[in-house]
Amino acid sequence: MPVAKLSWATDIPALDRVATATARARQARLTKPAGSLGRLEELAITLAGITGDVIPRVMTPVAIIGAGDHGVTAEGVSAYPSAVTAQMALNFVAGGAAVSVLARQVGARVIVVDFGIATELPADAAILRRKIGFGTRNFANGPAMSYAEAVAAIEAGIGIVNDAIDDGADLIALGEMGIGNTTASSAIVAALLERPPAEVVGRGTGIDDAGLTRKIGAVESGLRVNRPDPHDPLDTLAKVGGFEIAGLVGVILGAARRRCPIVLDGFITTAAALVARRLAPPAAYCLVASHRSVEIGHTIILDALGLTPLLDLQLRLGEGSGALLATKIIVSACALHAEMATFDEAGVSGRLADDAG
Amino acid sequence: MPVAKLSWATDIPALDRVATATARARQARLTKPAGSLGRLEELAITLAGITGDVIPRVMTPVAIIGAGDHGVTAEGVSAYPSAVTAQMALNFVAGGAAVSVLARQVGARVIVVDFGIATELPADAAILRRKIGFGTRNFANGPAMSYAEAVAAIEAGIGIVNDAIDDGADLIALGEMGIGNTTASSAIVAALLERPPAEVVGRGTGIDDAGLTRKIGAVESGLRVNRPDPHDPLDTLAKVGGFEIAGLVGVILGAARRRCPIVLDGFITTAAALVARRLAPPAAYCLVASHRSVEIGHTIILDALGLTPLLDLQLRLGEGSGALLATKIIVSACALHAEMATFDEAGVSGRLADDAG
Repeated sequence: MPVAKLSWATDIPALDRVATATARARQARLTKPAGSLGRLEELAITLAGITGDVIPRVMTPVAIIGAGDHGVTAEGVSAYPSAVTAQMALNFVAGGAAVSVLARQVGARVIVVDFGIATELPADAAILRRKIGFGTRNFANGPAMSYAEAVAAIEAGIGIVNDAIDDGADLIALGEMGIGNTTASSAIVAALLERPPAEVVGRGTGIDDAGLTRKIGAVESGLRVNRPDPHDPLDTLAKVGGFEIAGLVGVILGAARRRCPIVLDGFITTAAALVARRLAPPAAYCLVASHRSVEIGHTIILDALGLTPLLDLQLRLGEGSGALLATKIIVSACALHAEMATFDEAGVSGRLADDAG
Repeated sequence: MPVAKLSWATDIPALDRVATATARARQARLTKPAGSLGRLEELAITLAGITGDVIPRVMTPVAIIGAGDHGVTAEGVSAYPSAVTAQMALNFVAGGAAVSVLARQVGARVIVVDFGIATELPADAAILRRKIGFGTRNFANGPAMSYAEAVAAIEAGIGIVNDAIDDGADLIALGEMGIGNTTASSAIVAALLERPPAEVVGRGTGIDDAGLTRKIGAVESGLRVNRPDPHDPLDTLAKVGGFEIAGLVGVILGAARRRCPIVLDGFITTAAALVARRLAPPAAYCLVASHRSVEIGHTIILDALGLTPLLDLQLRLGEGSGALLATKIIVSACALHAEMATFDEAGVSGRLADDAG
């Protein structure tokens, strides 16, 4: 199945350059020295370009959190047992996790999606069921999933974000939960960016030195055994990725097609963005990088995507925590752009002529 | 009047080490890998130490914005005319300035204080009147103000913050407005840190190269003519400071005495913090640095104070804009600390033993 034929990898609009230019002109009239709000000005202008609205607002942010398990945990690559994936997904919807607190802070609805948790969840848990499988297979020994499974997860992600946007979402904060998913993300990044695993593998939830060595070894095995094609993002995603990572690729592609800004979280969501951009380059225009993770591979992907994150708070939690924190900043940037008075409106004098001194 | 005899420079409590330790222990039980919330964890622990509350909350943040004019503008040191100080103070209370928008975003009351605007304000403007004078004198030719005026401004600041805390304020975001006040702040910093003016003078609201040369020259004149004593912060403040800067020194000292966290903004508020710490070293414990300003002298003072800012968004507006933006992050850090479930409460498994892999 050639990538170019997949309908969801086409039809993503370009940035609206008229909206961008008009928003930039508006910024110059607001009561502040030109450029003095720095990246907040850029953010509002970027959102104008993404959405096509000269005065974009974020009124209904939605966090989409993909969850899935990873067969590669059998290699001893995580500080936590796989059972934590399901336990934390339940904690997200019960309201006790970091992402739950931060979503309340910014008024975001949280949609938790089971793309591939290894256990059955309680029937009454408020988690969307899009389970492609009970965890991926151990990619150290063979492909994590089939090509068809990867496509199914992507299409599930597209469907979820389409529904969320139909329900009014005007910004998507991405998040994830999956014990072992920094290992899968490292493998994707090493494969697609053709970097040695030791340069992209970090400590994830906080593994010790012996664990780090096992984790690098698992990624090396995955690449050697599966030989993912660095020029075929779907092949790479299927062979060494994860169900929730594939689901997030779909969320990104679906949101970009609808001109909806997507706020990345840390290493895993940014790895998903790398796959999405390889599948559909214009998807990159809709991405906002929230924070710079402590995870070493994160900066490598951000550089590859040409993104500069808003925050650097030494976060390494995932879940969407950084994305929701940055959403607070984005909401403020849009409020400044929309609500500040212009020099004329406020009766404030402009600059002196530059030779006035 | 020896500094040690000034009552407001004493009686500032130390950090509460029991609250700090108890808050740190709570962080370790929350459902996340230890340390994975990075600086958000530190922030909550710091606020516990400042306030003495193991679970600190920010429910009633207040922005205190000091305004004043500067005689040194006669040297051609600013890109904007002095009239903008009063115009912007009115814009703050009318709701059209950046600080007005950001205060609404975080639910903060804004208190704008006239410590020394050069004009009479309209009688009905909702601005606190603590005018020490109609702008300082031009410090390039002689002292900006008298020692008694500096003390009066500090005491006015203490009174204002005491009233705000009596009314329920649990966090003070500092801000300022004063055409010419980056020049005065540069002179304070050059004097107290004994640095050459050219190393600390920046472009303020965006002055051109010729203006920058005039600005450096004005600071050099101010130091040469007035010879402020680098070991006497009040002498320095009076000779080359400003009314609103002195007022902010008072706000900091008053808030610290009441165990109230103080969020600094950019270069000017941080210069005020340097003076406050020289007057009363324990005041430094209550400071949170919000952002790293583009203004070159800001990093020099932050380093001197041992503070690492939360944000780096290329802001250089002042007004309290960075302080209020960072307040959003601080509110979230406290919410995470207060509202996240513990591992026991959520039934989430802890770490594997480190040799489990």
